[in-house]
Order: sequence, then C-alpha cells, then structure tokens
Amino acid sequence: MAIANTSRRIFEPAPLIDALRAMLGERCSINPGILDRHGHDESYHATHNPDVVVFPENTEEVAAIMCLARKHSAPVIPFGVGTSLEGHVAALEGGVSIDMSRMNRVVEVNSDDLDVLVEAGVTRKQLNNHLRDQGLFFPIDPGADATLGGMASTRASGTNAVRYGTMRENVLGLTIVTADGRIMKTGGRARKSAAGYDLTRLFVGSEGTLGVITEVRLRLYGIPETMAAAVTSFPTIADAVNTVIRVIQSGIPVARIELLDEMQMKASNHYSKLDYAEQPTLFIEFHGSEAGVAEQVELVKAIAGDLGGGEFRWSVKPEERTKLWQARHDAYYAGLSLRPGSKGWPTDVCVPISRLAECIVETRKDIEASGLLAMILGHVGDGNFHTTILVDPSDPQELKRAEAFNDRLVDRALAMGGTCTGEHGIGFGKIAFLEREHGEAVGLMRLIKQTLDPENRMNPGKIFRS
Amino acid sequence: MAIANTSRRIFEPAPLIDALRAMLGERCSINPGILDRHGHDESYHATHNPDVVVFPENTEEVAAIMCLARKHSAPVIPFGVGTSLEGHVAALEGGVSIDMSRMNRVVEVNSDDLDVLVEAGVTRKQLNNHLRDQGLFFPIDPGADATLGGMASTRASGTNAVRYGTMRENVLGLTIVTADGRIMKTGGRARKSAAGYDLTRLFVGSEGTLGVITEVRLRLYGIPETMAAAVTSFPTIADAVNTVIRVIQSGIPVARIELLDEMQMKASNHYSKLDYAEQPTLFIEFHGSEAGVAEQVELVKAIAGDLGGGEFRWSVKPEERTKLWQARHDAYYAGLSLRPGSKGWPTDVCVPISRLAECIVETRKDIEASGLLAMILGHVGDGNFHTTILVDPSDPQELKRAEAFNDRLVDRALAMGGTCTGEHGIGFGKIAFLEREHGEAVGLMRLIKQTLDPENRMNPGKIFRS
Repeated sequence: MAIANTSRRIFEPAPLIDALRAMLGERCSINPGILDRHGHDESYHATHNPDVVVFPENTEEVAAIMCLARKHSAPVIPFGVGTSLEGHVAALEGGVSIDMSRMNRVVEVNSDDLDVLVEAGVTRKQLNNHLRDQGLFFPIDPGADATLGGMASTRASGTNAVRYGTMRENVLGLTIVTADGRIMKTGGRARKSAAGYDLTRLFVGSEGTLGVITEVRLRLYGIPETMAAAVTSFPTIADAVNTVIRVIQSGIPVARIELLDEMQMKASNHYSKLDYAEQPTLFIEFHGSEAGVAEQVELVKAIAGDLGGGEFRWSVKPEERTKLWQARHDAYYAGLSLRPGSKGWPTDVCVPISRLAECIVETRKDIEASGLLAMILGHVGDGNFHTTILVDPSDPQELKRAEAFNDRLVDRALAMGGTCTGEHGIGFGKIAFLEREHGEAVGLMRLIKQTLDPENRMNPGKIFRS
Repeated sequence: MAIANTSRRIFEPAPLIDALRAMLGERCSINPGILDRHGHDESYHATHNPDVVVFPENTEEVAAIMCLARKHSAPVIPFGVGTSLEGHVAALEGGVSIDMSRMNRVVEVNSDDLDVLVEAGVTRKQLNNHLRDQGLFFPIDPGADATLGGMASTRASGTNAVRYGTMRENVLGLTIVTADGRIMKTGGRARKSAAGYDLTRLFVGSEGTLGVITEVRLRLYGIPETMAAAVTSFPTIADAVNTVIRVIQSGIPVARIELLDEMQMKASNHYSKLDYAEQPTLFIEFHGSEAGVAEQVELVKAIAGDLGGGEFRWSVKPEERTKLWQARHDAYYAGLSLRPGSKGWPTDVCVPISRLAECIVETRKDIEASGLLAMILGHVGDGNFHTTILVDPSDPQELKRAEAFNDRLVDRALAMGGTCTGEHGIGFGKIAFLEREHGEAVGLMRLIKQTLDPENRMNPGKIFRS
C-alpha cells in the first residue's frame, strides 16, 4: 500500500542515489521489495517508502551518508528491524532509509563493570546470546527482537521495567551522527556523572529526529541465581491491580508482573490450548537468591490471598516456568486468532498505579459500549497497559471507531495524570496526543529539534508535524 | 572576599532593583550580609556577590521576576541553600539571585504511587521528616541538607546511589520557568513515558543555566523493614575495592558501600575518639526484609573474608548502627581537624569500578609525592571517590599545587574511561575539564544553551565560559 511521497522540500533523489551507489556499491538499494520493507513498521499505519535504502558498516560510513544527504537536502530515516508501532520508520517525505543491520557487532563486554558497547544494529536476543556464557544479561524486553539502537530511540521498556527500569535508565552512553554529519560521543563508562547536559537522555526517545544513533553503551546485570514464575487469578480486575499496588508498595522487587484480562485469557486458553480460569490473571516473575526468591513468593502469595486471589501456581524449574508463562508469551497472537485476518491496533497509556484499576475498568466498559473487539494486557507494575483492538484494516468505519476509542482512552489516562505512551513512542500516530499531554513544553522540544536539525531532515513528520 | 563583578553586558542594577522592590517589598534585599551569603557556596571558590536577592513564594512570582530580569537584561542565579561545591551560585556577572527558601512546601504526597511533589526550596531532611509517619522516604543523600531543587540542578547523588540511583533516576517531573519567563511542566506522574524529548533529564544537571526549577516531582520508597550497618577493614585498598567489585557483580543490593582510606581513618579515630584499625575500611549498609538483610550480610562477610578483610562488625540496632557509621558521618570534619584553619578542596572523579583500585592507589601515591595533605573517601559502589585536600586558602603556591594535583587526577580518571565529576557538577570550577571529557559534544550542549537562553542570562559563566 505504497503512498506517494508528499515532499515539500526541493529534493531530487536521482543524483543522491548515484552518489550513494558510488560510495556503497551493492549496499545501496532501490529494489522495490527492499524499499517496501523499509516503508512501514509492525503497526496498522500506512506504508511510505523511502527513495533509497543504504546499509552502512560503521559510524564513519553513516557520517559520510549524512553528509551526502545534507548536500542533497534529503530526509534521513534510521531503520533498526522495523518493529516499532507508531509508524516511526515510514518515509513520510521519501529520502534515505539507513538500515543498521550490518552494524551488528558486540564491540566490547566489560564484565567487571557490568557494561557493554554494541553497534546500534545488534538485537537484544543477539546480545543476550552473546552474554550468556559470562553469566550476564541485558534485561529490557519489549517483546519483539528489536535492535538496541531502535530500543534506545523509542525509549523502549516492556515486561521487566518494573525491576530494571527502561532504556532511559540502562543506556550509559551513545555514539551519534548529527544531522550535519559530525560524530559525537555522549555519556561514558562511569556509573554516574554530573558533567554537563544529559545529551544521552536527550537522544534516548528522540525517535531518530535529532540524529542517528550508531553505538549504544548499556548497563548489564548478573543472571540471577534463581528465577521463579507464578500465576494467579482474581474475581475482578480491581482485586488483581490492588494486589500489584500492595506488592510494589511493600518494596518486593518482582522482576515482572503482568495482567491479562478475562478476554485475553479466553483468547489464550483457546489459542494455546490451556485451561486457565477466564478471569483477570497476574503473571509474575521473581529474580534473586534461592532464599530471597522463596521469601518474595511467600509475600506475594499472602498479599494475593488477602485480596481474593485463587490458586497460586509457581515454579523455579525452567520448563514449568515456560509453561506457566505461555499464555502471556502467546498473548498477541492468541488475540489475533479471535478474528482471523484482522490487524492488532495496540494502545499504550500509562497511569499512576493508584488509578490503574479505575482506568482499566472504565476502558473495559468503553470497549463493550463501542462494539470493538479488544483485549487488555498490562505491565501493571508500572501502570502501563495495552488494549489490542482487532481491526479490519479495509473497513474505514471500524478504523474510525478504533481511533475514537483510543482518543477517549488517552483523555482518560491524561485526566488521571498519565501519559499517552508508556513505551511505544509518538511516531506519526500520536502527534496530537503529545500536544495534549505536554502543552507548552512541546514548544521547547520543537525548539531543540530546530536547533539540532534546522533543515528538518531527520525523520521528518515524527514527534512533530513537518 | 567580594570581588568586583566583571559584567560584559549593558545591565544597570538600580532600575531593576526598584522594580523588584515594588513587586516584592521586603522580599527583595540588597543588604550586604545577604548579598554576601548568596555570592558563594561551600567551596574554596572566590565570592561573587549578586546585585540583589529576591525571595519568591510561588512559581508565578518566579515567572514575574524572570520577566523583569529579561526586561533589564539581568543575569539570574537560582539559589537553594548554597551547599554546592564548584561555585555554582556565585554571581560572576552580578544580577539577581533567586533564593528559593520560601518555596518550601511539600505540595502533595501520593503514598499509593510512591511519588511526591515538592517546591524547589524543600530540603531533603525536611522532606524525610514529613514522610516518616507514612513509612516512606526519599533516599538520595549528598551529605549536606541541600534543597531538592538544588539537588536536581546539580544531578546530586551521594552514599546510596549504588542502590537507589541519582537525581537523574529519581526525578519524575519538573515545573520550570524559562529564561523568557514562561512556566512549563516536564515529565509527569506516570512511572514511565515515551512521549517526546526527555526535558526533565535535560534540566536535571543543568545547574540553573537553562531556567529556574520551581517544583520537583520525586520517586519515593517504602522505609525498609530492616536496616543493618557493617564495618570491616583490609590490609590494602585493592583488597577493599575488589571486595566491592565482587559484591556489585554478585547483584547483592547493598544500600551503601563506602571506602575510607588509612589517612581518613587516622583522622576519624583522632576526631571521633574511635579505635578503628588505621587501614582502608568499608562502611556498608543493608536494606530489606529481616531474612534478606541477614542473607546479604552473610554473603558480603564471606566475600570480604575471602579477600583479606578483618573483623566484620555489624548490627541492625539503630544506636549500634549509628556508632558503627560514626567515622563515616564525621569524615569531613575529622579531615579538617588534621589541619586547623584549612579549607577542604574536594575532588570528585568517578571511574569504571574495574579501574577504581588502580585509580585510588595511584592517587594516594600522587598525594604523597605532591606534599599535600589529603584524605580519600569513596562512594565505591559507583566508582566515585573524593580526595579532600586540606588547603590554606591564603597560600597561592599551595592552591596551585592542589590545582595541579586535581588536574592530574582528572586526567587519570578520563584515561580510565571515567568522568571529572561524579556528583558535584561543573559550576565554574570544572569548565576546562568538561571540554576535556566530552570534546565536540560540548558544542552540542552549548547550542542547546544558546537556544534556550539566547541572551546568556541564566547563571552565566557556569558549565560554559560566558
């Protein structure tokens, strides 16, 4: 579903493509299949193809590409593996898509210091495979096997942010190439620093609109001695969420704590052939020493029991843990299976945890009133939850209803002191919400964008309207 | 020791003072004692008095002050309680010092969500007194009873950053007044968000050079069920630091882990009338459940024993904990007592922990070769350590030697992948080091400064040369 580029700049692709080809040879492509693969992410958003895709192998090549793009006034879109969810990689105004997949080296692991330097195209699973033998791991898990550059760019998090934080907390430093083609390093290897402005945090979450991230230095963790998984169901969503609030307030360092609502459990039972109660259910993971995990399990079990939780199934054995969590792992595809041929439209609000039960209950009512088919699944320890709306992408009426529902959901979350996006980012799908959430501060963000990218060539049309 | 202001801008104080007085009455002062108190912090740096000090009571008043300062082209310096250490509050070009002490309300505590909104003039001890009855606390402890606005501005941390992070990780959002007098909110109450640029982190650590922070929203923690303190000594600094490395790598969540070198222990024994071994000594604190703390203590004790640690004294009783940690608490004044009349010049490098023993050992040798009197004390879990050089501020030769020593220390840390400042910030004392550490990225910082404060009126001469 390629859509014509609506470039409002004077940009002629042909001479730029010639120059890129002269520099990169076969690592510069205008193959229609490749252009198409780089014009969209995993979301329902429409495809917008770039004019050319390049595959650099090091930071210096990225800088050279940026200089050429500047000379030719071309838009530039950094591309990881395209697993974003708000149209982040769509080439709204055409231009050059920089595919980072060939920059996939783990540059150095410092096991004594628990840090690692990776090129931006390394994926999180690749990194964890690389680290396993050293007893180390990188915890951030957004579900998809995204690149670490992409995860930094969207400020990704996922299931175990409740314990380990998000990309914001786990990026120590970056190598970036600015819009005018200069190479810079931000941050460093020290655990903390008070030296100047926090450029690292400015680029984490900037969605490719300020420059290209080519290397990422990350914090690592020792693989826990013991891990346990647990599952327990509740008569109501409020009971489940109140359990989570009590667990967090008690300072029990759960590694993951996920909620699936009754509709999602129904889908999962059907899809994964399970026999769970079709009730709001918590999936929990514990990391620590053997005694520490046992203590955490007892504490959480007691809290869940107090608040109406049913049977508390748990295990430390790898195969049983996998089985217990299967419904959670399969949730997305289980959802889609409820309506073959549909696409999932994932919402992403995050609210203060004290308002979470109320927000989810109202959202569930809204789903039913709207006639949409949707499941709720939440990273509830952070107050972040997704509804996956199953839409027929060829039905404009239904898309409109889904849009209106998401609009009400965001308003509800903002009224509760929340955010329109806990972890997916703004892309071009949530620009209106960003204004609604941050008001005048968006003007300040825009000012920074104009300063660092005065020609608006870095991923134009994302975060802000062009 | 007031020094004439060297203003390079057209700024006439008199009409601005008249306008401020008309607005604020007695909350606008040109009393020489008050000017002097606002012209310096706790460091050895020379005093530079502002022309006028104002005491706003709310964000709107700060905005009105900023509009007046803009109209009169006046520099503005935000002032907490003046406990910074690199000359941050000195009015290098005169102007208006905005004293935040009357903005000292705890605005709202959300115990369910573990967050609090405070005005920027609330100090950390005031906040913890306020929270105690609710079983909550705010962990960041830079030693001094600083304001939370000041701590955010310098990206403060201190002894328990190893467990709880720094101000970077614990500020959820800010209310700021920009250089042109607009009020903006950054961040929010949600635990995480991927909505737009991270303006909160841009202002945290910006040392008053981008605007005035008037409110801070912070993360809170439940007071741990059990706390334990422990002390143990080692034959060499390398043994002590290697113990720390093993503890951190094992993922043992120590709340604090501090090193005092033999010179510091000698000073402390003398000052606090203690009988500790005059050897490199670790002071450790543990937070958790009763069983969890006991397990942590056993693990750390075993590691310390393996690496040559002597007697391992520890306790969970409050009065014994205080006694065990007394040498650590009194360290600064114990140091000063070694040389009555001297001033402490605290250095602040932070290196990857794998290089920490080497860095400290070389620094100890350098101290001895330089003929300076200095103790070493470290937040070793983060790789951050201070040497307190005891200088006679009236001896220019000695000050020069101290400066040269600090210069070598910073170079040593940078060569090891470290930073010139772990927690004190740049102020005007470390501007040259910032360039040395971040190179071209300082140009990017400066670009942001110029964009947000085009007239260079916000704390001019800090972080960057005017």
